[in-house]
Amino acid sequence: MQAQSQGHHSELGAALSHLLSSGGKRVRPAVALLTGGMLGGERSKLITLSAAIELLHTATLVHDDLIDGSLLRRGIPTINANWSPAATVLTGDFIFARAAVLASQTKSVEVMQMFSQTLATIVNGEIIQLFASRGQASREDYFNRIHAKTASMFELATSAAAALSSTGDGVIKLVSQFGYGIGMAFQIVDDILDFTGEQVSMGKPVANDLRQGLITLPTLCYLETHPEDPDAKAVINGKGYPEINIDRLAKSIRESGAIHLALDEAKQFVDQGLVALRELPLNPERLALEELAEYIVQRHR
Amino acid sequence: MQAQSQGHHSELGAALSHLLSSGGKRVRPAVALLTGGMLGGERSKLITLSAAIELLHTATLVHDDLIDGSLLRRGIPTINANWSPAATVLTGDFIFARAAVLASQTKSVEVMQMFSQTLATIVNGEIIQLFASRGQASREDYFNRIHAKTASMFELATSAAAALSSTGDGVIKLVSQFGYGIGMAFQIVDDILDFTGEQVSMGKPVANDLRQGLITLPTLCYLETHPEDPDAKAVINGKGYPEINIDRLAKSIRESGAIHLALDEAKQFVDQGLVALRELPLNPERLALEELAEYIVQRHR
Repeated sequence: MQAQSQGHHSELGAALSHLLSSGGKRVRPAVALLTGGMLGGERSKLITLSAAIELLHTATLVHDDLIDGSLLRRGIPTINANWSPAATVLTGDFIFARAAVLASQTKSVEVMQMFSQTLATIVNGEIIQLFASRGQASREDYFNRIHAKTASMFELATSAAAALSSTGDGVIKLVSQFGYGIGMAFQIVDDILDFTGEQVSMGKPVANDLRQGLITLPTLCYLETHPEDPDAKAVINGKGYPEINIDRLAKSIRESGAIHLALDEAKQFVDQGLVALRELPLNPERLALEELAEYIVQRHR
Repeated sequence: MQAQSQGHHSELGAALSHLLSSGGKRVRPAVALLTGGMLGGERSKLITLSAAIELLHTATLVHDDLIDGSLLRRGIPTINANWSPAATVLTGDFIFARAAVLASQTKSVEVMQMFSQTLATIVNGEIIQLFASRGQASREDYFNRIHAKTASMFELATSAAAALSSTGDGVIKLVSQFGYGIGMAFQIVDDILDFTGEQVSMGKPVANDLRQGLITLPTLCYLETHPEDPDAKAVINGKGYPEINIDRLAKSIRESGAIHLALDEAKQFVDQGLVALRELPLNPERLALEELAEYIVQRHR
């Protein structure tokens, strides 16, 4: 990933180093490597694909943080915190380009098609969110949004890895279902952590989504079970600050059963994914994917 | 191209309509179609490639206009003139994604590799320009910049079309040289038109580049031949407004031999391109490409 800046402007190398040093869990490349390993894919191509996927994810984060005006991610400054909007836009574009270069190095037309379709899905989802009214959401909107934002990339990680492993369409469909399930669960748990996490470990204020007018699953579960709460009523009626006391609402959500209900839904997504995965032959990589799936719903604590 | 917004957020369709209705000369897709036609390529794939190239070009313009704060292009409002920076960034990203989807539909790994490398080259060039000091330029910097900005896309149009036409590497190299020559000439003539064009037909103020601190070939030619002009001296010493009277300097450049010298260099690039092109068999498409090459250096009037 770091090598993708070689031969280009030195500031791009600095930006890429900064972005890569911030760590992250590298879940998407791990999923791609394990899926490809499970299916006997060629390791060097899987590594190239995994780097392409992580860079694609990184590029979307660079533009996201610019759009949201976020100054911290994973506790370290974002690119837009230190650079001009112009430089941030171009850094994101450059990382998109290099992700595409890596994807094309897999020499698989199928991978390239999946890759570009996924980028279109992600960006379309962001545009829907941008034009949506703040504070409004149905479950359908929410699930569509987290599919575009997160699950589509997990589907890419699994199905592109399968496409590199000379398996049939049936296997690609199964691993894609697994990717969908863990991807949906991953985002739901992220949205739970926004309420239950510590500010220090999250690198952003608690209930940040709610403050941004973004209704996620814990809030949806709370609105359904507490429609008479004045803060909930104000949210449902599309009212914002100062009518809604965000800190009070966040505390109510945290202390209600909403977190538990949301976590249950995440577990259901993982379970559905595991049903698909378990139709494939048992081997160490499949076991590792099962453990990874369980980890995704355990990291809320 | 318009169909690429189908199934996505309606605002994307509106943005794409707006961008496509603004016209433009569609030189890049014409070059791709003629090159592929000359080499006997499959017409449907060449049309897909041409649409991909024009959309890639369009996406870079959307981000460029945002970065430059340009409110008009081809005399009509830019996306950022009407939309927020966030929506503009995402619209550009979406068009990149759909350009990549189209490129992948050619089912050519070679085309995908050329495509993603070209995007990386273009963006890297923009980053170099962004970090460069205003008002400074050597011929080497200038030629590198216009290669990244413009000629690289013409090289893509010709070489990707050749790659779709099952020719050998020798032919790809020849048409790439032709694409390079006309692409360099195309940008030099654009830079001449910035001095000689009418504000109405350009849709932007005359000598806009100079006002932005961008030194192009007419200015470089003028600086070389008029080093004692006080305005030229100030430019060479990296001084800006108010020391340099831009209107006076633009008038001096326009009335000097600098325009003629710059045009001569454009013609040399075209001639070098034509030398490569003429190694290929004569047919109606080759003749059309020769005429197109001549048109590129004639449109300065």
